[in-house]
Amino acid sequence: MEYFENDSVRLSANERAVVIIDQTKLPNKTEYLTLSQPDELYDAIKLLKVRGAPAIGIFAGYAVYVLSLGIKTADVSVFLSKIKEYAAFLDSSRPTAVNLSMATKRIVETAEEYKELPVAEIKEKIKSTAIAIHKEDIEMCRKISEYGLTLVKDGYNILTHCNAGPLATSRYGTGLGTLMLGKEKGYNFHAFCDETRPLLQGARLTAYELDKAGIDVTLICDNMAGFLMKQGKIDAVFVGCDRVAANGDTANKIGTSSLSVLAHYYNVPFYVFCPSTTIDFSAKSGADIEIEYREPDEIRSMFYERPMAPDVKCLNPAFDVTDGKLITAIITEKGICRYPYEKSLAELFLS
Amino acid sequence: MEYFENDSVRLSANERAVVIIDQTKLPNKTEYLTLSQPDELYDAIKLLKVRGAPAIGIFAGYAVYVLSLGIKTADVSVFLSKIKEYAAFLDSSRPTAVNLSMATKRIVETAEEYKELPVAEIKEKIKSTAIAIHKEDIEMCRKISEYGLTLVKDGYNILTHCNAGPLATSRYGTGLGTLMLGKEKGYNFHAFCDETRPLLQGARLTAYELDKAGIDVTLICDNMAGFLMKQGKIDAVFVGCDRVAANGDTANKIGTSSLSVLAHYYNVPFYVFCPSTTIDFSAKSGADIEIEYREPDEIRSMFYERPMAPDVKCLNPAFDVTDGKLITAIITEKGICRYPYEKSLAELFLS
Repeated sequence: MEYFENDSVRLSANERAVVIIDQTKLPNKTEYLTLSQPDELYDAIKLLKVRGAPAIGIFAGYAVYVLSLGIKTADVSVFLSKIKEYAAFLDSSRPTAVNLSMATKRIVETAEEYKELPVAEIKEKIKSTAIAIHKEDIEMCRKISEYGLTLVKDGYNILTHCNAGPLATSRYGTGLGTLMLGKEKGYNFHAFCDETRPLLQGARLTAYELDKAGIDVTLICDNMAGFLMKQGKIDAVFVGCDRVAANGDTANKIGTSSLSVLAHYYNVPFYVFCPSTTIDFSAKSGADIEIEYREPDEIRSMFYERPMAPDVKCLNPAFDVTDGKLITAIITEKGICRYPYEKSLAELFLS
Repeated sequence: MEYFENDSVRLSANERAVVIIDQTKLPNKTEYLTLSQPDELYDAIKLLKVRGAPAIGIFAGYAVYVLSLGIKTADVSVFLSKIKEYAAFLDSSRPTAVNLSMATKRIVETAEEYKELPVAEIKEKIKSTAIAIHKEDIEMCRKISEYGLTLVKDGYNILTHCNAGPLATSRYGTGLGTLMLGKEKGYNFHAFCDETRPLLQGARLTAYELDKAGIDVTLICDNMAGFLMKQGKIDAVFVGCDRVAANGDTANKIGTSSLSVLAHYYNVPFYVFCPSTTIDFSAKSGADIEIEYREPDEIRSMFYERPMAPDVKCLNPAFDVTDGKLITAIITEKGICRYPYEKSLAELFLS
């Protein structure tokens, strides 16, 4: 399993557990967890020790495999029913995470496909599917990153928002993949990293990942990005995405849409990095994407020694929608799309 | 002294001390301090217990008066030399705060103007000047606020950034004055308040002041302002300013310039509230305004239980410059100016 040895989600060396970096301890502590019991695997997702849609998918594939090893039966129908039970149990840890249920579904389908084989061999097939999910993600991230590299020049100053790096995916990340792959290939990029309030994914995770990868990184507050653009210090903005509508309207972490307006005003290219699985052709435009509102205490008190605001109302939208027309290009593993996206996305994925 | 009894900086009831709200304890604790000793008056400014340029000016006037009461001499020249010593001592607490040295200078000039009088009567003259500084600030804020009210309608949703309220000035504030005076006059405004990273003046001070004044307030993170503008939920943006150049370019808290770009894009009026003392005709444009850069730990660790970012570089500009052309109007105590500001500001103040 050497191929995966530095990945933040992987099978353990003895292949009987899942190893993850505990993302809740970052950036103060890089702590690896070795998980094999149903409750600890469930909690790892539930408590955000592993987060980022693709990373959760990879984790879930391995988790079902690891749990399958504990099913002591030679009866395939008993085995299959237990596998489905574990899959449903893991699915319930974060019901809205689509990569989670997609991964467990693939594992269950694999088990059913090979139900004529002995249980021990079905377990091997499950392992192969789990590894395939992981490898496909690496491949997807690598392709996105290679397309990304065609859009930039050595020495570029790149502004990032939130976290779309290896921790959230596999080896390269989506939004950060170009930086990571570029580093491997000898490019020298400089990253400006928005801290990304209120949950500080930029400060806690992106700054950590880029720094660890040896990429020159400078942390800023979200309200400083426009200041840098005005000074001509940003060559491109790179963001990931949570969901892209058929017309290119893109839901991503709150603050992304404002960055696109600033980038438009200051003539800075604004790029969205997007695995094809994130494109939702059933959403015609951003109007069809529902925004999640979260708890006020994430703004008022979370992470602080004491509350930093009086007990007033807070509005805490977790995402916003960037208009397709403000996006310079959408970079997928299958190619680069440009405005108008109704046409370019459909041509690449629906024809 | 009843006239001042609710002000956040005032002379004590026995007129022998200065009373302030300790701004470093807000919003968790509303603690009044009664200060009369040289070191505690100095520290109150130095340690930001009192902050906001006009508030520091008012404080300094009273501080020199209170200190004058302790000068036990009938010899006017001894008295004058001691007054100058106290003025210089207070000035050194925050050397760049122009309102501080302007206030102490006025007090020293008053003492010199009346040097033919007995010491006890000079002390009374000093008191009158200190009260005048306070009253003039209230008057200035009130006039700015009255002009502000001509620009809005009842029920407006107003977005604010940083803190330009009573705590930073006297009764009404500049940027918040329209809201405060409007409340007195029966208007029902709703305020959205940017938390204003990294020092959180919006969360700690503005949300506190507006809430205490009975104004409907909702706290947001800085990166959420554009989200609200896009939804048409903001009717106007109100900000104070630290320095305005002759062409209307305006230095204010970091993030202000980005708000002006967003407001421009979404057709939201963007108003700067500006005491005439803040206009610097010696600065031709924003290019002549130097930006202060502050410590990285304000971003990485300040206020948090533990550091929220790895030990990477941080860029921490405290201010940015908003282009005059993006400002819908600059509201001063002498009237409302509109673009082009070279002309409108000069007409109002230099002709």
